Amino acid sequence: MSEVKTGLQLRSLIKKSGELEISLVSVPTPEPGADEVVVRVEATPINPSDLGLLTGAADMTTAKASGTREQPVITAKVPEAAMKSMAARLDESMPVGNEGAGVVVRTGSSDAAKALMGKTVAMIGGAMYAQYRCLRVSECMPLPAGTTAAEGASCFVNPLTALGMTETMRREGHKALAHTAAASNLGQMLNKICLKDGIGLVNIVRSEEQADILHKIGAKHVVDSTSPTFMDDLTNALVETGATIAFDAIGGGKLAGQILTCMETAINKTAKAYSRYGSSVHKQVYIYGSLDPRPVELNRAFGMAWGVGGWLLFPFLMKIGATEGARLRQRVIDELKTTFASHYTQVVSLQETLQLDHIAVYAKRATGAKYLINPNKGG
Amino acid sequence: MSEVKTGLQLRSLIKKSGELEISLVSVPTPEPGADEVVVRVEATPINPSDLGLLTGAADMTTAKASGTREQPVITAKVPEAAMKSMAARLDESMPVGNEGAGVVVRTGSSDAAKALMGKTVAMIGGAMYAQYRCLRVSECMPLPAGTTAAEGASCFVNPLTALGMTETMRREGHKALAHTAAASNLGQMLNKICLKDGIGLVNIVRSEEQADILHKIGAKHVVDSTSPTFMDDLTNALVETGATIAFDAIGGGKLAGQILTCMETAINKTAKAYSRYGSSVHKQVYIYGSLDPRPVELNRAFGMAWGVGGWLLFPFLMKIGATEGARLRQRVIDELKTTFASHYTQVVSLQETLQLDHIAVYAKRATGAKYLINPNKGG
Repeated sequence: MSEVKTGLQLRSLIKKSGELEISLVSVPTPEPGADEVVVRVEATPINPSDLGLLTGAADMTTAKASGTREQPVITAKVPEAAMKSMAARLDESMPVGNEGAGVVVRTGSSDAAKALMGKTVAMIGGAMYAQYRCLRVSECMPLPAGTTAAEGASCFVNPLTALGMTETMRREGHKALAHTAAASNLGQMLNKICLKDGIGLVNIVRSEEQADILHKIGAKHVVDSTSPTFMDDLTNALVETGATIAFDAIGGGKLAGQILTCMETAINKTAKAYSRYGSSVHKQVYIYGSLDPRPVELNRAFGMAWGVGGWLLFPFLMKIGATEGARLRQRVIDELKTTFASHYTQVVSLQETLQLDHIAVYAKRATGAKYLINPNKGG
Repeated sequence: MSEVKTGLQLRSLIKKSGELEISLVSVPTPEPGADEVVVRVEATPINPSDLGLLTGAADMTTAKASGTREQPVITAKVPEAAMKSMAARLDESMPVGNEGAGVVVRTGSSDAAKALMGKTVAMIGGAMYAQYRCLRVSECMPLPAGTTAAEGASCFVNPLTALGMTETMRREGHKALAHTAAASNLGQMLNKICLKDGIGLVNIVRSEEQADILHKIGAKHVVDSTSPTFMDDLTNALVETGATIAFDAIGGGKLAGQILTCMETAINKTAKAYSRYGSSVHKQVYIYGSLDPRPVELNRAFGMAWGVGGWLLFPFLMKIGATEGARLRQRVIDELKTTFASHYTQVVSLQETLQLDHIAVYAKRATGAKYLINPNKGG
């Protein structure tokens, strides 16, 4: 087991000088405590939520490569105007990677830890872009026999986010929902959940190709925000489903406000009396991503019963508590190869993750390009 | 009582042609039912919330006067772009006036109704810009002896809105609040409530004159959004008070986002670890007015734990229920001449309400100009 003693770990550092540096550092693998295990990480996805930490506010079109083949280094410039938002992480070398999967290669002394020896487990907890990860037994989820690390690498973020959306919909009293950037991996999962659970879902996409992806997996309501009839199409789909809550990955621009406007129009199509405050039905948009970094623009043409806010998985899980969280996780495991299957377009090593040609693809956050890192690939 | 049989009532009509018409119509006074009373309206304020119905989306700089001295008519153009938001009220002649006070001049047969004969009562329920108003006993609140109709005319909207803000603050887990357009009648009430109840309040104003108004009534934290040091001043006041919720009467532009940004900066001044999602403390701005009709612009430089939404008094009262609502109303009556005293700059008749020179003043919604209508003035 000598090879376990140290391993490469990806680090992201933003310097006070305004430079982003992404590098691989050799770190000692901690000796596991009684209730801990060491996992050889074999699969860890690049989610949009990882990119925020990996590249921060840096302009990746300025990225330059240096370093060695084994330990490449990427540098890029952070625009002056964006440095304020990076203030809290300046000059701190930060590990990256929210989730992943791999094989337990070393365990602590507890029975629970020992029971995991040799098992393929899914993990959550950060610092997954590394060859080895030491973590508590409670942060691992053993995968069913016959499941590969690649199949279990995305067990948490996308599946629980998609389930978090339908759960939030129910808890806040809505009966159907809308989703933007809806052809994403996450969006496809959400479609499968909604089809299975009989929930009305309005998919909002930005191209015909994305609409096709969703139609092929059986999506019932797909509207294209680049179509000249978008507002009417969206209103009709909202009337048909009754959706009064939306989850928005785009963030910037007019889309959140357009959704609220169409919801209000849809509701008023069945309203009986005029209220100058608009309908009394609460309309909600939760912004959970930032594919468009521009400001959100709300023209408030949708009455007074509305809300827009940020939505994140971890605060949601805190709010619903451990028992409910475990129920959602169990569903993910049960349907890992169907509802919650992820598809990747590339599998790369840690070194390849720091290649300019790959960065140019995954940093774009384009729908359809999805990367999986295998930190022990070719290692 | 023959004079009670009919009375003038103000009406606002927006025609499909895009013309606003404000007029006075002579309407028969209903015979009160068993549990109803007829009130001679002697005082009814023009609140910002009334202007929304009174002038709608019309451009009041285009207003023209016609009609007779006794029954004047005002017409004005509604801009093409704003007609969509008026769709639900087109070609409906609508009475105006949320609240008011007056003397009970006729009653139904029930004991509760009879007990109000000759009493001065405060009223809520719309259509108050009228000489007579027939309404249920439950919609009247008898004023204490020695209280005039003018003193009791604004018992509901502003006082309950101000109390609704501190109640919402408490119910949603915040310990202090911020308020914009803070030198308004409502803002002054809110200051008096917060000083009395020991609640931290950050007042945001748009001029030195407005700051002076608040300093004179003992406001502790007043910041001026037109000052070059506004963002720093606001952040400091938020640190000192710990305010994480704001009520915003302005609506459009960048202010709501600036408040969230300063809250986030204030919270992070005491934060211990970096989170790329920003602080986990929920920051909320409720928009309850629209002094600035432009779109809301949110640059999202404030993490993910935030919300912006509409806030209205009546849904709030529905939510807290009858018992809590009665408790708030009783406080208003108890402190009507102190905490909840309203000040008016003009008292006008119904006819004067339709004079172009008065409209030019009250339609501006300027802080410091507050109109009270006495529908029976000179009548």
